[in-house]
Formats: sequence, structure tokens, C-alpha cells
Amino acid sequence: MTHTTLWRDARLVTLQPGSAWAPVDDAALLVDAGHIRWVGPLADLPAALAPTIQAEQSLGGAMVTPGLVDCHTHLVYGGHRAAEFELRLQGASYEQIARAGGGILSTVAATRAATEEQLYASALPRARALLAEGVTTLEIKSGYGLSAEHEARCLRVARRLGQTLPVTVRTTSLAAHALPPEYTGQPDAYLDAAIAWLPQLQAAGLVDAVDAFCETIAFSPGQTRRMFDAARALGLPVKLHAEQLSNQHGAALAAGHGALSCDHLEHLDEAGIAAMAAAGTVAVLLPGAFYFLRESRLPPVAALRAAGVPMAIASDHNPGSSPGLSLLLMLNMACTLLRLTPEEAVLGATRHAAAALGLGASHGQLAPGCAADFVAWDLDHPRELAYWFGRNPCRRVVRNGVETCLKDLP
Amino acid sequence: MTHTTLWRDARLVTLQPGSAWAPVDDAALLVDAGHIRWVGPLADLPAALAPTIQAEQSLGGAMVTPGLVDCHTHLVYGGHRAAEFELRLQGASYEQIARAGGGILSTVAATRAATEEQLYASALPRARALLAEGVTTLEIKSGYGLSAEHEARCLRVARRLGQTLPVTVRTTSLAAHALPPEYTGQPDAYLDAAIAWLPQLQAAGLVDAVDAFCETIAFSPGQTRRMFDAARALGLPVKLHAEQLSNQHGAALAAGHGALSCDHLEHLDEAGIAAMAAAGTVAVLLPGAFYFLRESRLPPVAALRAAGVPMAIASDHNPGSSPGLSLLLMLNMACTLLRLTPEEAVLGATRHAAAALGLGASHGQLAPGCAADFVAWDLDHPRELAYWFGRNPCRRVVRNGVETCLKDLP
Ligand SMILES: [Zn+2]
Ligand SMILES: [Zn+2]
Repeated sequence: MTHTTLWRDARLVTLQPGSAWAPVDDAALLVDAGHIRWVGPLADLPAALAPTIQAEQSLGGAMVTPGLVDCHTHLVYGGHRAAEFELRLQGASYEQIARAGGGILSTVAATRAATEEQLYASALPRARALLAEGVTTLEIKSGYGLSAEHEARCLRVARRLGQTLPVTVRTTSLAAHALPPEYTGQPDAYLDAAIAWLPQLQAAGLVDAVDAFCETIAFSPGQTRRMFDAARALGLPVKLHAEQLSNQHGAALAAGHGALSCDHLEHLDEAGIAAMAAAGTVAVLLPGAFYFLRESRLPPVAALRAAGVPMAIASDHNPGSSPGLSLLLMLNMACTLLRLTPEEAVLGATRHAAAALGLGASHGQLAPGCAADFVAWDLDHPRELAYWFGRNPCRRVVRNGVETCLKDLP
Repeated sequence: MTHTTLWRDARLVTLQPGSAWAPVDDAALLVDAGHIRWVGPLADLPAALAPTIQAEQSLGGAMVTPGLVDCHTHLVYGGHRAAEFELRLQGASYEQIARAGGGILSTVAATRAATEEQLYASALPRARALLAEGVTTLEIKSGYGLSAEHEARCLRVARRLGQTLPVTVRTTSLAAHALPPEYTGQPDAYLDAAIAWLPQLQAAGLVDAVDAFCETIAFSPGQTRRMFDAARALGLPVKLHAEQLSNQHGAALAAGHGALSCDHLEHLDEAGIAAMAAAGTVAVLLPGAFYFLRESRLPPVAALRAAGVPMAIASDHNPGSSPGLSLLLMLNMACTLLRLTPEEAVLGATRHAAAALGLGASHGQLAPGCAADFVAWDLDHPRELAYWFGRNPCRRVVRNGVETCLKDLP
């Protein structure tokens, strides 16, 4: 049990709704049992709380924000796709790459061929790279196993990362990611199987949410609906890879199931935006995939903004379409490529990202009752989080009230 | 004086002309007085050299490449432009930003207002970020001082970085970067002044090359020619910010002065390419600025490739158009955005980048006689240097034969 600690000498950016964007000087956080009990300018500390303080820590005048939240990753997989990346740039055709064993099914094969220990060992430095930049909450999807055994293995690795590293991991079952080779031509039979194994994954404590890839090259809206119905019947929240390459009206479908988030959204239409706004569904924008796939069609940021749909930003780390591991770079790309403001980008990797994981009340902002997850930065203003890229200004990380030793991460 | 050391157990990528792109297993480097005496598969070590070995170091089976070379940066400046970045994304007009004190002249003002110690203190962590990714040679331009006093100050800071940090710094005088406010409307008078102070900068040992910004918003081809003539008369090599926003035929002009490099080149034409090929001038591509400025016109990569013009890749770090500090991210952007192959991108940040600094015979490749600058990576194949982004796979750095302690950089 940690002592009730006053973290003082912060230039604080709480990111509470309605809070100032500029740092508040001479601020402090009172942390008790891993949670924030009080936060604000030190001069405003209520007299009744002063006697509860058992320890004090100085943040040295650094700018302090909530810990970052990466709300969409595919961090656990075997192999990688650097050879395919090179072949493509050497001018190889789609057929040549397929013959050379490229594409998502090559990652499925490499994932199935890996032991649980190997999957853990390869995912660990990826998670460490995210944590080094101040990530304290991390979503990890399955979706490269595509069998009961291999999906469970990947989700166990995700859970283990959350036990080994100082990070809150949320797991998402994405069995409806691609059609495994043993079900070629039988997507409905595969979905039956995936729906059948979902209760056992849930019973094993491996599933916090259920996701699907609704696209011409993946699963249809009807198939997506079946998976969502199964998830909701189990009491699991849903989210969706929606409208990335074409408009499948997946966002409206997902919103109708009370989805936590719809992700990608380049081809989202007004009806989808209205449905998301009505359902309180978060729009998760993934600039890394937009960049790496050289997309030209932007997600409808202005319309999402006008409709009041909260926008989140995530790394979408995966070996095929976003092999990046810097959430701060994603903030810059969200501004540079997608034209978010720095404030929208920072909210997108904190409060709104937490909401996309169903953690809006407990993470992603510095408010009483929230987890004491915060980062001290070597920066003057939070807009700099989105301005610089390719450097790491993260100086200190506190998660659940305990300081992370960044140099000694496992 | 260091011992003659055999660095063994490397999976070696020498990047010598004609060498294999795939790593050579069980290879070694024999290093003597900071230089490579011999390199190759350990089994091929000549018997006559074996007795010269005084110490051995294992590279642990890691992939080893030449140290990276960032051949175009503006690393020394005061302030930054995050507020301007935010204003722009909030929809402010050009006039509003100018009124708020934005643009290059705001950086000139902040640079002039900073002490030499402040300039050093702000540049140091930027250089450290580059070094942490395996950069062992770094070019730094002046160009935000724009007076004899302030240009000298910035170049002294650049030199000092090369003395404090384990990196070879090449300094470039870029007085012809922008017109300082005290010369508004008198570009030729400013150039006269800048040409007049060049000999004293050179005499102080502060100038390795001379650069200019030839563009409608900067200096004309005629003015550029005057600066180049002055540089060449002093025996200084030249390089040019050429054809970035429009075709000023600057590349041909620079090639006619035997330029080491022409940089940016989005609007380069066939005549410019031919002139560069004939002069052996390196094409330095700057994907960070291309990305950050959301350019749509690509540099003519296919034509440069066809003409045999060597292509380099650099960070172009600067506060206005490329506030990035990851050369590895630039490799990914060179592939993703500019369509270089991973091999071209890696050569662009090693051998060809060294050539762009006039160091082609001594840096950027692992060959007898070259500086013993090399990096051990946590990667299997050099194409991965361009595939992943936003993570740092650099494990060990040796520069001039001495291992850098990455955790204890000043
Ligand atoms: Zn995804
Ligand atoms: Zn430049």
C-alpha cells in the first residue's frame, strides 16, 4: 500500500471537460491508493485534506498531463512484413507478393507458428516503446490467431503484458478480422465457430470488448451484426473497423449496438456520423494507417467535430498497414494529415481514447476518482506534444500512483 | 590511444559499393586508431593481421551497419514554432499568423535573443535524439542569425556539439537563408554583407561548406551565384536549397559550381538532373518537410535513379517546416511518401549522405580506411530500418572506434 502522496510543483493540464488548455502553474495532485483524491492549484488544497498527506513528491515544475491512452493496437503477432514492404517498393505486383507469401494471412501463419513465449517476447519491446512515450493505458486486439486456440494465446499474451509492465491493458477479441485459410469460401461457418468460442474466451477473463472488420475484403454488415449480437448477449461492449476502404454503413450498425468506438472512418457518411453522435460512440482516427497506405480520402473531421462526436487517435500498430510505435507521432500526423488541432489530438490520446475503451470515467483525465496515471514532460505547453515528432520528451511516468522507472522496463 | 580491436560476431552490412544488401554472417571489423583496417567474414581475416589484434569485442550476433549520417539539419535556433503550428490548425490566416509574430523571422528574432549558452542548451537534446538512433555524422547549418555576430554564434554552437557529443559535425554557412529585417528591400546589400563576413567565419574554422536558399521567397539565382562565387574563391564547397517550391534552375547553377548536393528538389527538371549527374552532385531528399508542408509534388525520384544521381535522405530538422528528430522515420517516409526502396533509403542516410558532405571516402560505409563508425541494431535485415517507425532499434554505437554510452550522453 502506498502512502497518500502529494505530487506538487506541477504545471498541470488536467484535460477535464472545460479545463484550461494552458498549464496551470503551481498545481498538485493528491494521490491515495492509486487514485486521484484531489487536483488543483496547491493554494486551493482544502484544509481538511492537508492532514491526510503522508508523503510529498516534487514534479520539478514540469508540465504534467494525464498518461496517454493508445486505444487501438494489434500489438501481438508473429513475424513482420518488412520483406513485403520492400517487394512492394521494388515494384512487385500484388500477385508476386501473394506468391511470396505476403498479406495478412502471412501474419496469421507466423502468429500460429509462434509459441506463446515467442509472441510475448516479440510484443514486449513494442509495448515498451509505447510506454517510453508516456502510454499508461493500452488496448490490444487479437485477430491474427483466428482459431480458438490461437486467439486465446494472443489474448493471454496481451493480459501478461498488462501484468508485467506498468500499463493498464484492455483486450479486444477481433476474431472477425480475416477469414482463416481453413474456412476459405465459408465466412459464415467461420463466424459460427468464432461466435461459439467467444464465451470460453470471456470465461477465461480474456475479453474486454469485441471488434470486427466490416469491409468488402473482410466481413459483411450482416456477418458483423451476428458477431455483435453474440457479444451483446454476453454483455460485452463492441467496436468496429468501419468505413476504412469503402462505405459499408458499418458505423451506423455499430452505433445501433451501442458501440464504444468506430475506427478508421475515411468513408463515413452523414448518417453514420448522426448515429455515432446519438449513441455516444467515439470516432477513433488512425493516421498511421492513413499515412502508410497513402490514402487520399480523409475521414470527415469537420463533420465529426460539428456533430460533437468525440475523436480519438491511436497507433493502430500492426505489421501490415501501420508498423509504427510512436503515439506522439500519431498526434503530429493527426494534425498534419487529418487537420485536427493540437488540443483535439491530445484529447484524442487521453480522455477520448479512454472513452473509446469504456474507461472514460476513470482514465484519460486528471480528476478526483480517476486513476493516478500522469506524465511529466520536458515541454512548456501541451500543443508541443503534437508539434515535435521523432523525439521523446517524456521525463517521468506515474501509473496508479506509482512512478515507473522508464530505464528499467522489463 | 585505443588498442587495435577486433569487433567480431557481427551480421555485417558494409554498404560498400557492390556489397551485399543482406547481412554477412560471422563477420568482423578490425579497428585501429579510430579507423577500419580490415572488414569481412572472420574466416577471411588475413593471417598477417591476426598478430596485430590487441583486444577483442563481441557484437553479439547483431546486425551492424555504418553509423547514420544526417546531412541536412538546421539544429541550432532559438524558440520554436508550436504556437504558430497551432494557430494554423485553428484556421488562422497567413496575415493573422504574421501579426502574431510567426514565420522564419520569428525564429531569427528568437535566435538573436538567445545567448550562446541557451542556443547550446536547446540544441543539445535535439542532437542527442538523433544520436540515440545511431547518427554518427551530422551536418548543422546556420541561417537563423543573419548577421556576422549571430551567424558565428550559431556555428560555434554547432562546433561545440561536435566536441561535446560523440558525433562528427560538419558546419554549413547558410547566411543566404532569408533576408533579415534590417535589410528589408535590399537583398543585394545583405548579400554583400554576408559575402564580406564569410572569410572571417572561415578563418575562425566555423565553415565547412556554403549553402543558400534559391527561391522566389528567398534569393534569386543571380544572388545565389554571387554567394557561390565568393565561396568557391575561398575554396569552400557549396550546396543549395533548390527547386523546393518552384523551378529556379538552381540545381544546374549549383552543379556548375561543383556542388556537393542540391536539396529538396520537388520541382527539379531534366536539365537540372543532367547537370547534377555530370557534376556528381548528390540529390538530398527531405521527406520530413514534404510531409509537414503537405506537398503534393514529388521530387523526380525515378528520373534521378535513371540518371544515376546518388540520393540522400536527411531530417531537415528545423522549427518551421520539419520539427522532426528521427532519421529512421525519414527513411520510412522516403519509402512511403517518395517511393524509394529500403536499400536506397538506407544508402541515403549513410554512403550517399556522407558524399553530400564531401565525406564519401571516409564515412557512410564500412571499408578499410574509413572511420570506424558503426551501429549494432536489434533487427535482422537492413530493410527493417525503413519499415518500422517510431521505435528505436539502435543497441550499440561505435564512433571513431570508441563505443558510445547511449544512456550517458551529455
Ligand atoms: Zn486495426
Ligand atoms: Zn533546409
